[in-house]
Amino acid sequence: MANTSIGFIGLGVMGEPMAGHLLAAGHPLVVHTRTRTRAAPLLERGARWCDTPREVAEESEVVVSIVGYPEDVESVHLGPEGTLAANRPPRLVIEMTTSRPSLAVSIARAARQVGVGALDAPVSGGDVGARNATLSIMVGGEAEDVSLAMPILERLGKSIVHQGGPGAGQHAKMVNQILIAANMMGVCEGLLYARRAGLDPDKVIAAVGSGAAGSWSINNLGPRIVKGDFEPGFFVEHFIKDLGIALEEANRMGLPMPALALARQLYEAVRAQGRGRKGTQSLYLALQQLAGG
Amino acid sequence: MANTSIGFIGLGVMGEPMAGHLLAAGHPLVVHTRTRTRAAPLLERGARWCDTPREVAEESEVVVSIVGYPEDVESVHLGPEGTLAANRPPRLVIEMTTSRPSLAVSIARAARQVGVGALDAPVSGGDVGARNATLSIMVGGEAEDVSLAMPILERLGKSIVHQGGPGAGQHAKMVNQILIAANMMGVCEGLLYARRAGLDPDKVIAAVGSGAAGSWSINNLGPRIVKGDFEPGFFVEHFIKDLGIALEEANRMGLPMPALALARQLYEAVRAQGRGRKGTQSLYLALQQLAGG
Repeated sequence: MANTSIGFIGLGVMGEPMAGHLLAAGHPLVVHTRTRTRAAPLLERGARWCDTPREVAEESEVVVSIVGYPEDVESVHLGPEGTLAANRPPRLVIEMTTSRPSLAVSIARAARQVGVGALDAPVSGGDVGARNATLSIMVGGEAEDVSLAMPILERLGKSIVHQGGPGAGQHAKMVNQILIAANMMGVCEGLLYARRAGLDPDKVIAAVGSGAAGSWSINNLGPRIVKGDFEPGFFVEHFIKDLGIALEEANRMGLPMPALALARQLYEAVRAQGRGRKGTQSLYLALQQLAGG
Repeated sequence: MANTSIGFIGLGVMGEPMAGHLLAAGHPLVVHTRTRTRAAPLLERGARWCDTPREVAEESEVVVSIVGYPEDVESVHLGPEGTLAANRPPRLVIEMTTSRPSLAVSIARAARQVGVGALDAPVSGGDVGARNATLSIMVGGEAEDVSLAMPILERLGKSIVHQGGPGAGQHAKMVNQILIAANMMGVCEGLLYARRAGLDPDKVIAAVGSGAAGSWSINNLGPRIVKGDFEPGFFVEHFIKDLGIALEEANRMGLPMPALALARQLYEAVRAQGRGRKGTQSLYLALQQLAGG
C-alpha cells in the first residue's frame, strides 16, 4: 500500500506534517497549496508540485485535503479546477478539513457521479497531533472507501472511527466542538471565580482536575491560562467557524442549543477584542474584560 | 491519633459510610442525625447516640458534619443546640457539607471566639467516593487546624488539598461545580446533536472522549445517558443548591458568569419537569423536551 500515489492539498500547520508522514512512509507524493513557498521543504524531500487541485487529482490514486474554510473545501473539489474535474480521476478523495456535513454529502454525491469514492475525515488533536501522528480521525462515507483509506489514515492518527455514511465524520467533529465550547466556558468562568475568590488557581486545578469536574481542557489549557499563555493551540477564528457550522446544522435539525449559542456569542466577543488569531483559552480574557478587567 | 474521639453529624448517603470508616479506624464515635433510625447500623457497631449537635460536641474532640443545605449547616453549628453552644467545646469542627463560603467564614469566627478551630472541607466524588474513601477534599481554614484534621481526612479521601483560609474550601468546591455545570450542558447538547444527526452516540463518545473534548462527564455520564439511565449519582436538587450558591458569590464579587447562569436556569427546568431527585445527567431530558421530545 505504500506504493499508492497520494496527492496532498493544503500544507498549513496541520497539512504539512501530515503530508510529511505520508512521504516518509514511501508514498509517491504530489502537492498543492495556496502559497507555493510553503511546499518547499516537502519538494526538497522528493514531493512534486502541481498547480491546481485538478492536476493533483490527475497525478494520484488518493487525494487528501486539509484546507481552511468550507468555501475552500468546495473549490478544491467542486470548482472548475477542482479534484472532481480531473480528466483521469483518482480512486478516492479524503477531505480532512472541518466543514459542513451537508457539503460532505454534496461532494460524495458529485464524486460518485464520476466514479470516485469520497470520505469526510475531520480530525482532532491539533498541530501536536498532526506532528506526532496521534490525531483522532472521525470518518464518514462508504465502508469500502474507508477500508481503502485505512492504511493511509493509520499513518496520521491513532484513533480512527468510522461514524457512518457521508457527512457522519463532520457531524461527529461537530459533537467534539460542542463539548469543547461548553467546557471552555466552565474552565474560564471557574478560573476567574477562583482568582476573584482569592484562591491559588493551580491548587484548585490540582483538586478538581482528577475528579468529576476533570477534563482535558481544565488540565491542559487551565494551567496555560493561569500562566497568562494565550498563544494558539487552536485559533479562535477557526473555532468560531466550527461553532457556526454546528449551530447551522442544529437549526436545520430543529434543535435548540442554548449553551452552544452562548459560546458562539462569547467567542465573537473574543474576536471583537482582537484575539481571532489567539488560542481558544483566550475566552478567559473576554470574560475578564466583561467583569471589568 | 485513632484515639481521638469523633462526633459525626449527618448520616445520609455520604455521611453514613464516612462515619463507618472512622469507626472502623478505631475512633470512639458519637453520632447524631435528623432521622434516628438511620443511625442504627453504626450504633450496632459501637457508636453512641446523642440527641443534639451540642451534645455531640460535648462528647468529642473533633466534630465532623455533612448535612444538606446551608440552613442545616448554620443550625448544626450556630443554633441554640449547635456545636458551638457546647459547655465543654471540642478542639475542632470540620464542616464537609457544600455550603456558602461566607457561612464558613462566620462559623470560623464564632468558633474562634469560644476557642474552637473550624475547617470547611467540602468533598467531591459522590456516594461512591464516600464508600470507597476516595473523596477529593477541598479544605479551608488555618494550617494548624488542617494538620490536626489530616489523619481524620485521610481516612475519608485520597486527594486532600488545603486551599487557603476559612471559606477557601467552599470556594474551591464552587469552582468544581461551575466546571461540571458548563460541561454537562455540552455533554447533553452534544449527545442530542449526535442522535438527531443519526450518529451512533457510543461511537461518537469513543471518538471524542479521549481527546481535547474528553471529560469525566462525557466518559462516565455520557454512556448512562445513551442507555437511558437517569438515576442519581448526584441529585439535581442538590446541584441547583450549589449553582445558586456559586451565582450568589459571583454576584457578590461583581463577576458575571453567563454560562453558570444559563446552567442554573436549565437545571431549574429539569426540576420543574419533576426530576429534582434524578441525576444531573437528566439535563439531557430537559433539552430533549425543549427540542420537542
